Amino acid sequence: MDEKINVTIVGYGNIGRGAHLAIGNPDNSDMNLVGIISRRPEIVANEVRNIPVFDANDEASWRGLDADVAILCGGSAEDLPKQGPYFAQFFNTLDSYDDHPHIPPYHDKKTGKDMPGYFKDMDIPARESNHTSAISIGWDPGLFPLIKILSDSFFSGMKSYGFYGLEPRGGLSMGHTNAIKRLKGVMDAAQYTHAYPEAMKRVRSGENPDLKPGDMHWRECFVSVEEGVDKEGMKGIEKKIKKMPRYYKPYYTEVNFISQEEMDANHSDMPHDGVVIAAGTTGDGHKVLMEFKVQWESNPEATASIMVPYARAVYRANQRGDYGAKTIINLLPDSVSSSSKEELIERI
Amino acid sequence: MDEKINVTIVGYGNIGRGAHLAIGNPDNSDMNLVGIISRRPEIVANEVRNIPVFDANDEASWRGLDADVAILCGGSAEDLPKQGPYFAQFFNTLDSYDDHPHIPPYHDKKTGKDMPGYFKDMDIPARESNHTSAISIGWDPGLFPLIKILSDSFFSGMKSYGFYGLEPRGGLSMGHTNAIKRLKGVMDAAQYTHAYPEAMKRVRSGENPDLKPGDMHWRECFVSVEEGVDKEGMKGIEKKIKKMPRYYKPYYTEVNFISQEEMDANHSDMPHDGVVIAAGTTGDGHKVLMEFKVQWESNPEATASIMVPYARAVYRANQRGDYGAKTIINLLPDSVSSSSKEELIERI
Repeated sequence: MDEKINVTIVGYGNIGRGAHLAIGNPDNSDMNLVGIISRRPEIVANEVRNIPVFDANDEASWRGLDADVAILCGGSAEDLPKQGPYFAQFFNTLDSYDDHPHIPPYHDKKTGKDMPGYFKDMDIPARESNHTSAISIGWDPGLFPLIKILSDSFFSGMKSYGFYGLEPRGGLSMGHTNAIKRLKGVMDAAQYTHAYPEAMKRVRSGENPDLKPGDMHWRECFVSVEEGVDKEGMKGIEKKIKKMPRYYKPYYTEVNFISQEEMDANHSDMPHDGVVIAAGTTGDGHKVLMEFKVQWESNPEATASIMVPYARAVYRANQRGDYGAKTIINLLPDSVSSSSKEELIERI
Repeated sequence: MDEKINVTIVGYGNIGRGAHLAIGNPDNSDMNLVGIISRRPEIVANEVRNIPVFDANDEASWRGLDADVAILCGGSAEDLPKQGPYFAQFFNTLDSYDDHPHIPPYHDKKTGKDMPGYFKDMDIPARESNHTSAISIGWDPGLFPLIKILSDSFFSGMKSYGFYGLEPRGGLSMGHTNAIKRLKGVMDAAQYTHAYPEAMKRVRSGENPDLKPGDMHWRECFVSVEEGVDKEGMKGIEKKIKKMPRYYKPYYTEVNFISQEEMDANHSDMPHDGVVIAAGTTGDGHKVLMEFKVQWESNPEATASIMVPYARAVYRANQRGDYGAKTIINLLPDSVSSSSKEELIERI
């Protein structure tokens, strides 16, 4: 373990920047950032100093890069489905793929085709090239399903629930925000998810209720529009938002149009929070309750801070010959820490 | 995975009974209880039906038992230090050893000797006989250190803290209760641990304070005495309790003497609860907060419910040739669940 783990960051947006910061943490001093791979190399090179920046589209430029793990920081909607399987041919990889329904095999309604899903899409190129590719690492997916799967194993008949947006302000969802930003006429957007406290109360009581997505959360949207979009145009945007399948249709949704100034002043932070609640009984009806709560003032920085130590786990799994796609539950918890085996036994 | 995992329970006290119940959970239908090994076989045989009961002291009677994993349900103070290394010669094992300072190598002040610690004491016989022995499985030790080690890996400079006894009633600590029960003149006892809410507040604020054990918790004791113990005798017992090193000396401690009737009526339940809190920052000072909270109406049943699925993880590690002592961080999370690989990918 004396040699450093060489990592490269692919994609330098909010999560990429967060990963850069996290690699600088003293606990990650066993890691070495050997380069950043970006589709906007000139812009990134202006922002970072002393780190080589490569053009993602110029494969020859980074093929020889001595990286043990590539931390893929692209988005799940457009970047990772292509980038993931591509980079898995060349490096061990790690990503925060969060399009939950598309991780296992699924049926694509648009094309009518049965699709293998992201896990399989990563597993094949990784295995063929003797690489290890951890997918969906972060807090959700990531820590939340880890806690859910463990707690559901302990207590039979128990269902665990994830709630998001606990504080009055709610949690800023990047995916839902981006879905609005892609609409015509929209300049900027921020979507806050809010959990219904009454639904959380029901879950805590142990009744294991049957809750639909719209019973657990509602969605608050702030939108600024481009010049020339009038009241009618705004009405059209609001309608389009509320009709979006999966993202907004199942939820009570509020849309507020605000100026870009107000957007910049009040909605440039990226806070998020959430809780996994699992309640049930043991023996003759003795109640059990487990709650795992997280609160982040910067969601992308927190996500990246979780991803970077998992690059260590990916590297170690690969060193052991454990190839192919992995999720958080397929990686050994001790391999995430930079502490020695002896230090870890001290802390048990 | 089609064949059932044969398990045996060693020690039929509160945790042993809880393990028996947990093996009956539908999620554990891949397990089969092939026998109970006890030092009081006649008494246990009267309590359980249809399960063979063996005398722990009659090795010949259970040596041929076809058990894949022995779930050791004895106590940490007197049972496990002997039972653990002994049974690790014959079976894969799993226990809830919770004498934290004696898990790594330690110096024994009484004898003046350097001791190898429980991890090493289990590792040697397990390796010599190609067995896998998971130690310190439960919620604490167990899930709490798992969460602590992970969270400390994510955020540099962050310290995680464990608090116990959150509800007004506090949490019943079996170890501290038993320490009182061993005193001369004591008939029965119950010790409730209480966390100081102000200390939890300081930790949540992110200041990562330097807290001594007595700054985090206080201890409330209820004691009934044997016939003939007078006021002077009670004073002596109270003094002895408050002077006990590690258990009581570092804490503010209240001792209440009550009748055995009151003890039976109000203190026969075994509730416990606790929380791991980790707070810090990412990037330029964005706050992060993680909390993992558990509440159990029956501490031994909850502990056993966590232990039993980990027997599956021990069995699978052994099948892979992963021998020796393991703690919770050395076992793969997916191997704890009875769900198939495909089902688990669905749930990520």
